[in-house]
Amino acid sequence: MPEVLGGAGVSPGVGAGPVRRIAGDIPEPEAGSRHGGDAAAERDGALGPLEAVAADLDERGARAAAAGNTDGRDVLNAQALMARDPGLADGVAAKIGEGTGAARAVFEAFGVYREMLAGAGEYMAARVSDLDDIRDRAIARLLDLPMPGVPESDEPFVLVARDLAPADTAVLDPAQVVAFVTEEGGPTSHTAILARTMGVPAVVALPGATGLADGTRVLVDGSAGTVRTDPTDAEVAAALAAGAARDSALAEVSGPGATKDGHAVPLLANIGGPKDLDAALANGAEGVGLYRTEFLFLDRSVPPSDDEQEDAYRKVLEAFPEGRVVVRTLDAGADKPLAFLPAPGEEPNPALGERGLRMARRHPDVLAAQLAALARAANGLSVKLQVMAPMVTDAAEAAFFAGACRDAGIEHPGVMIEVPAAALRARDLAPEVEFFSIGTNDLTQYACAADRQVGGLAHLQDPWQPAVLDLVAPAAAAGVPCGVCGEAAGDPALACVLVGLGVTSLSMSAPSLPLVRAALARHTLDECRRAAEAARAARSAAGAREAARSHLPGLADLGI
Amino acid sequence: MPEVLGGAGVSPGVGAGPVRRIAGDIPEPEAGSRHGGDAAAERDGALGPLEAVAADLDERGARAAAAGNTDGRDVLNAQALMARDPGLADGVAAKIGEGTGAARAVFEAFGVYREMLAGAGEYMAARVSDLDDIRDRAIARLLDLPMPGVPESDEPFVLVARDLAPADTAVLDPAQVVAFVTEEGGPTSHTAILARTMGVPAVVALPGATGLADGTRVLVDGSAGTVRTDPTDAEVAAALAAGAARDSALAEVSGPGATKDGHAVPLLANIGGPKDLDAALANGAEGVGLYRTEFLFLDRSVPPSDDEQEDAYRKVLEAFPEGRVVVRTLDAGADKPLAFLPAPGEEPNPALGERGLRMARRHPDVLAAQLAALARAANGLSVKLQVMAPMVTDAAEAAFFAGACRDAGIEHPGVMIEVPAAALRARDLAPEVEFFSIGTNDLTQYACAADRQVGGLAHLQDPWQPAVLDLVAPAAAAGVPCGVCGEAAGDPALACVLVGLGVTSLSMSAPSLPLVRAALARHTLDECRRAAEAARAARSAAGAREAARSHLPGLADLGI
Repeated sequence: MPEVLGGAGVSPGVGAGPVRRIAGDIPEPEAGSRHGGDAAAERDGALGPLEAVAADLDERGARAAAAGNTDGRDVLNAQALMARDPGLADGVAAKIGEGTGAARAVFEAFGVYREMLAGAGEYMAARVSDLDDIRDRAIARLLDLPMPGVPESDEPFVLVARDLAPADTAVLDPAQVVAFVTEEGGPTSHTAILARTMGVPAVVALPGATGLADGTRVLVDGSAGTVRTDPTDAEVAAALAAGAARDSALAEVSGPGATKDGHAVPLLANIGGPKDLDAALANGAEGVGLYRTEFLFLDRSVPPSDDEQEDAYRKVLEAFPEGRVVVRTLDAGADKPLAFLPAPGEEPNPALGERGLRMARRHPDVLAAQLAALARAANGLSVKLQVMAPMVTDAAEAAFFAGACRDAGIEHPGVMIEVPAAALRARDLAPEVEFFSIGTNDLTQYACAADRQVGGLAHLQDPWQPAVLDLVAPAAAAGVPCGVCGEAAGDPALACVLVGLGVTSLSMSAPSLPLVRAALARHTLDECRRAAEAARAARSAAGAREAARSHLPGLADLGI
Repeated sequence: MPEVLGGAGVSPGVGAGPVRRIAGDIPEPEAGSRHGGDAAAERDGALGPLEAVAADLDERGARAAAAGNTDGRDVLNAQALMARDPGLADGVAAKIGEGTGAARAVFEAFGVYREMLAGAGEYMAARVSDLDDIRDRAIARLLDLPMPGVPESDEPFVLVARDLAPADTAVLDPAQVVAFVTEEGGPTSHTAILARTMGVPAVVALPGATGLADGTRVLVDGSAGTVRTDPTDAEVAAALAAGAARDSALAEVSGPGATKDGHAVPLLANIGGPKDLDAALANGAEGVGLYRTEFLFLDRSVPPSDDEQEDAYRKVLEAFPEGRVVVRTLDAGADKPLAFLPAPGEEPNPALGERGLRMARRHPDVLAAQLAALARAANGLSVKLQVMAPMVTDAAEAAFFAGACRDAGIEHPGVMIEVPAAALRARDLAPEVEFFSIGTNDLTQYACAADRQVGGLAHLQDPWQPAVLDLVAPAAAAGVPCGVCGEAAGDPALACVLVGLGVTSLSMSAPSLPLVRAALARHTLDECRRAAEAARAARSAAGAREAARSHLPGLADLGI
């Protein structure tokens, strides 16, 4: 029976196709299974697949790297290392030596590590699932079971999963996936960000998603957040036509971002490096609002050389001779640990630990080298280079960073506003710097004390939470230009609300730019202000969204 | 040469005595060390100490439990389990079988687990240091080295450490320790809370503390946050006299809490169970402002029975026939995982995960049973029972909890205000409940995105941060009675500021009550308001503290 399921639409657009789920769990090999007696052959039979899994992970890592997906590459490389751990191989061999069958031996050898993690009473996060993933891949090879991970398909499909991990998606073929649907995840989950980057519609936090049978035809509306099962051809055609209408509405608007009444709102792109410039330029970015410089530093044992940094920065700066480029200094720590900048101790909650500027203050040489490379890269170019620090909490930290910038010859220092205290006391920070950039993802995470990585808390990670808008307002009113570079800036309705709150520029994944440009062009600054006021008067994220939309009539023309 | 070192005073009072440091690191046994050839003897020589360490941990756990220190017991029990891990013993035996000497074999066998944790790229927090602690204890036994941990001493001493862990302090003899001094830690660190509970002066975050040589005589002023080395007898006498003067000033004030002009501010105690009632009553608590119910639930595989709960609650309720008791429902998750309420998945940042009411919503049966037991316990008693939920984020959660309370026959539901969003939107939550209680420890942690467990961030975990005061203000002005039950309430100057912000009651560790009572009695409500205004106008925690004190002249009489 056709039905309409509701989740959270996190990447706009419409897609229809058959469901393909990420393959289910590999069953546990039976306890007490014994091999035939030839331990040496059995051992080779077990270690071969382990090496094959490692080689496969290497290859997928290389493909991810080639596609510019450094996060995916890092995860895959770490997994390959684990698969080749000599202690693990010894454990497998020892179990087989005692007569245990190969699959069970692999399962149990992994179990030693797994129990150690789990039994230690801490939450070992992504690494336990990474470990399980390697184990399952090895056992799947051993037992000739379907490999876990992204399904193979001859026709385009709707990818359905509990949640997508970087390892699942590092090697996805964009041409094969018409939509993403996940049971968990939120607007800032990996799935959501990936979908927006690929320009594929996505619905997350859809209860029962993984209960959809393979092959079921579904119509996914990433704007409305709905999944319709067994749609009629007419329904699919109507949805696609509405999508086409939206595309043509988008095509009508181009040029610099502005409201209907001409209030300029520069529209900028979030990038991870020079590889993202094409998409930014193709979507009409007026500059870069967030250049994440981590990619240069990740996965290496020594910092990049001064020349290497200067080159990477200059390539980006040269792309916008008339525009601006906002560079965020190294945001190490938390979920992006660096080998050469270890945290000073084990951190029970890395997101609340020594990350961002806190880490940079411990390593002033690394910060100074980065700032100097940026100053050299901008030398002689017409672009406006702005440099900002991540994870700034108070005026003293802002003053420290501005001083470091000036010492390096950087003229336009700024700070990220992503810690609630910094937003609340924005008026104290403003005299120290030239601009703010609000990171709504982390700001929401801290304001609602809800981890971005925990799917069950998606409802609290919503930047529409009125409390988050209450934190944007004082930052936008503190007297210095204040942009937004979190995912919130790419939500067309929320973008209008942010402008209504006084935000002066918006930076987002490049594919989100046209829709935001069109949404702004359809509303006056006054409408944006009324939408903002209505959103702040609401008592919930859903209420804020609804209240804002009632003041933004032009969104309907865009099919959102 | 005598010198005065400055840190953060976190527990008032003066103490003088010789320095005793927690024993230093156990050196790494030399790589490549070989035993004499008798592998069986060598193995026994290694496994014996491991079992002895486990037995010692068991015994210390039992002593901690007997002393009512359930946190300490949990850590110690978990360590004993690790020490007895069969995989670990196998690893040691295997290395010795290959010829490795016992101490090195122990070191390397632990190394396999340790590398697995460290190499997984996550921050494995307390468990890695627990693992190291077991290893070091085993190696100390093997090599006849001084045992790491609390030093032995024939005379009272000043305990100096990098930071104190529950395992270090679970078996401390309060009569032997005249003061604590640590290099790390903040106002909400384990050291600070323990010191206040024991009534021992403490200075934390003191740079160079661990450089103080054993035996150095020091004078510790836990109010001023100073440590004077080699004090003269006259200096010690003067400091002790000032302390005595303060004690006598304290003795002049008794009865219910109130400002100088008679504005009532009920002074309540934070307790963990019936065992804490004596201290609360001895210090004149007018009731309980925070009854942490976790101790009933920790370290067990099934929830406590209905009768067991009812008994524990009734003992506390009966102690205050004319007062009030505020019970916090189970705050599971984060750093207090429960065996029978596992988190739904691995959590990279437990403090931002499914804890408190978030967990209770997944297990409504556990919540309902606790509320029903509370209602039965209060049946027929004259005390006012108030029940509040931890980790509430928005109005919908407050409404859910109030509904659950009313279903159980609890008449006075409330919520903790510890998530920044809840403080900002307190006016949305207020219509749903009868009262608020601000948890300043977590509120500060989230507002400043600074983990309470990370010593290097102590300067950001300060409840004097003006941003934290900015969050207290809207909660106190939302139209329902609003207490504070974080450690901030026990700081006499900050207590006055909180009252000036509109807070209606203060709950703290019992030993802090007299000083707070005396501080309030020396100031009018207007002085408190002016102090609050001045603190909020400051740009830093230090500035806020200083500005507030200039409006609180009576603090000087109290030697603070």
